[in-house]
Amino acid sequence: MDSRNTSYARFVTEQPHVVIIGGGFAGLSAAKALKRAPVRITLIDKRNHHLFQPLLYQVATAGLAGVDIAQPIRRILRRQQNVTVLLEEVEAVDPEKHELALADGNRIAYDYAIIATGVSHFYFGHPEWERHAPGLKTLEDALEIRRRVLIAYERAEAETDPLRRAEWLTFAVIGGGPTGAETAGALAEIARRAMAGDFRHFDPGHARILLLEGADRVLLSYPEALSEKARQQLETLGVEVLLGARVKAIDERGLTIEGPAGTADERLEARTIIWAAGIAASALGASLGAPTDRAGRVEVDPSLAIPQCRETFVVGDLAHIEQDGDLVPGVAPAAIQQGQHAATNILRLMAGKESAPFRYKNRGSMATIGRKSAVAVVGKLELSGLFAWLAWLTIHIFFLIGFRNRFVVLFEWAWSYLTYQRSARLILEEAGEASPSES
Amino acid sequence: MDSRNTSYARFVTEQPHVVIIGGGFAGLSAAKALKRAPVRITLIDKRNHHLFQPLLYQVATAGLAGVDIAQPIRRILRRQQNVTVLLEEVEAVDPEKHELALADGNRIAYDYAIIATGVSHFYFGHPEWERHAPGLKTLEDALEIRRRVLIAYERAEAETDPLRRAEWLTFAVIGGGPTGAETAGALAEIARRAMAGDFRHFDPGHARILLLEGADRVLLSYPEALSEKARQQLETLGVEVLLGARVKAIDERGLTIEGPAGTADERLEARTIIWAAGIAASALGASLGAPTDRAGRVEVDPSLAIPQCRETFVVGDLAHIEQDGDLVPGVAPAAIQQGQHAATNILRLMAGKESAPFRYKNRGSMATIGRKSAVAVVGKLELSGLFAWLAWLTIHIFFLIGFRNRFVVLFEWAWSYLTYQRSARLILEEAGEASPSES
Repeated sequence: MDSRNTSYARFVTEQPHVVIIGGGFAGLSAAKALKRAPVRITLIDKRNHHLFQPLLYQVATAGLAGVDIAQPIRRILRRQQNVTVLLEEVEAVDPEKHELALADGNRIAYDYAIIATGVSHFYFGHPEWERHAPGLKTLEDALEIRRRVLIAYERAEAETDPLRRAEWLTFAVIGGGPTGAETAGALAEIARRAMAGDFRHFDPGHARILLLEGADRVLLSYPEALSEKARQQLETLGVEVLLGARVKAIDERGLTIEGPAGTADERLEARTIIWAAGIAASALGASLGAPTDRAGRVEVDPSLAIPQCRETFVVGDLAHIEQDGDLVPGVAPAAIQQGQHAATNILRLMAGKESAPFRYKNRGSMATIGRKSAVAVVGKLELSGLFAWLAWLTIHIFFLIGFRNRFVVLFEWAWSYLTYQRSARLILEEAGEASPSES
Repeated sequence: MDSRNTSYARFVTEQPHVVIIGGGFAGLSAAKALKRAPVRITLIDKRNHHLFQPLLYQVATAGLAGVDIAQPIRRILRRQQNVTVLLEEVEAVDPEKHELALADGNRIAYDYAIIATGVSHFYFGHPEWERHAPGLKTLEDALEIRRRVLIAYERAEAETDPLRRAEWLTFAVIGGGPTGAETAGALAEIARRAMAGDFRHFDPGHARILLLEGADRVLLSYPEALSEKARQQLETLGVEVLLGARVKAIDERGLTIEGPAGTADERLEARTIIWAAGIAASALGASLGAPTDRAGRVEVDPSLAIPQCRETFVVGDLAHIEQDGDLVPGVAPAAIQQGQHAATNILRLMAGKESAPFRYKNRGSMATIGRKSAVAVVGKLELSGLFAWLAWLTIHIFFLIGFRNRFVVLFEWAWSYLTYQRSARLILEEAGEASPSES
């Protein structure tokens, strides 16, 4: 047991120590599920906040402020006295020794571990693309994308050459999954609506929004009919949807795509590129010594534990688990169910029972396309249009943590619905970046 | 005339070109005062947003999000068709040639210029102190201070040595003017209230908040009785007010002060230090070739123009102008009045008249000390306590730009009043800084 827990340990030396790594949906739901359990919990995250990732694209597109969708983890768990929250980075987990190593050099022993550090971006073997095409996983990512989008309009206003201005007014989103489709839809609305009237040297409505997808339809995990509906909704908003478009190169001024077999490469000039394609599992997964899939996700057993240690669980996006032949998807409901399940299995093991196998209950999925349309699948029901959008809105606001956030997000939505305005249009300087105020 | 204005210039070649540098209170009020004037206006700022500076300390102390007190300048002026907003940095103004140089190398000619680039921090000849004691002028400053304050609590939770923990839990604010007093009051409330219950290894209520002032009272620009009231209110909140304390040295772990004459130097260990003391005028002032005062402020003539050019005005915090033997203070109402006055003088000059002299109408001043007390001077009336706080609240919310901001800020205030919670407690990583997630 590490020294920092000594004072606390005086009262509870007999209780097992559960370490949860990651304060996302999976980690937080595990901690909450152990609320009344006779355990000491240490929740470790390298960030101080839980993030409501499904709305992150709204921060990137200036619709919401970061504070509207994030909450300090220790605030969420303040009343749960059996949890200590630590802002630290975990470098490795050693399931043999039941011990983990922190980036600051300290080590923490555990009886049970739940690892839920999620995924980040994968650039298909081209890490150099990241500079030109940031992804969207953290609040910092979202603020950086917002900065780039807003700066692009500013540069267009200062540019006199029409071709170069057009480059600044071209926005390419790579990846036609829910994040890519939602981001492209919001970018189109900014161009057509929120920016209207703000510039003197061009019409923001002429901005081009490209959505590039390598497969032959967007929202690949949805039924085909809904993919088609989503494409139509995107095009109605003014998004150019390019299917079968595989990215070959990305640089500061644009990208090159390989069209469907037989077609020539195509060059697209776009100063703002957003990456919503590949994912790579958190590096912590590899430290476990358990088998991983191609994306680096840890292949857990049916109990969600790693094969060599039944007390070490991996949950959420970092876990690879199949059900009826399909991978359980990396979505918030699956992460929440897995976190709860790992907690239940810890209680079973503490009671001398065997772990129980995990089973994902798919209650449906939905993606929003712009300001008043969406697509949703609920069981056998396929929905699209305004009704799906209202369902999307209700569910997303309901699952936001904290009454204040729900209220403020609802207000922001109503406000932008009525005024077409996006309130978070602030450009913040970033150190080391050449922003106009530093050049 | 620079090339970028050519398309616009087709319609309005006969109209004089007014350049306004800076989108703060002074620059914005000048632009608005010229709304119906037959002029072309170019408003240039290196940031894209107008900032409601009187509430900036609330962002630094996690009470408000940046978006609540900032608004894109081009959004504010979108309906004013005679204004073009440019996100650029101005490097120099040449009043002889009626021309200014942008950081990107371009030059812009003007008929009239209003320079309103304000002030930044002055470290009494110790620029190396800035690293350890950031000031509070921009949104980036506020977010950096917030990050440091929140990180300090996180470090205290991870620290096992009681002395080192105490260093993390000591916060020193240097400068007892309104910004310093307001910041110290808010820091005390965070410690006593917002953080209560969030940590397992210490009681945030034991944090020390120090307010250091070189003079013998806080709020030096207020009547003595109100200074004394403010000191009492600060001490009630738990702030240690150190008067006659002059800073001799600042480093990463604390600072050294020289007490009143005859007393020995004192060392104070404090990991978080905030600078609210000296100010230095924007460097642009020096480029004008006009006389400046010790702080670098430009000594303008009674019309607010520089002595050698009656078409080049300096307004707001950057201007040095005396009235009845006193310097007109660097506060928002003075900046607004000066911006409007410079606009009026431009119209007079255009009509072939002489410029009129500026006269500052002091309608009062107020500072808030924590959650429900404040001090205010309105004419001969001196107020303190709850009533002054309500007046402060009303006036500050009323003068915020935009209905949305007023509504959200009022909601945030009501929320934190009822729950003692401060909603913006997010730590964002900053590139190049050693935050826990990078170490």
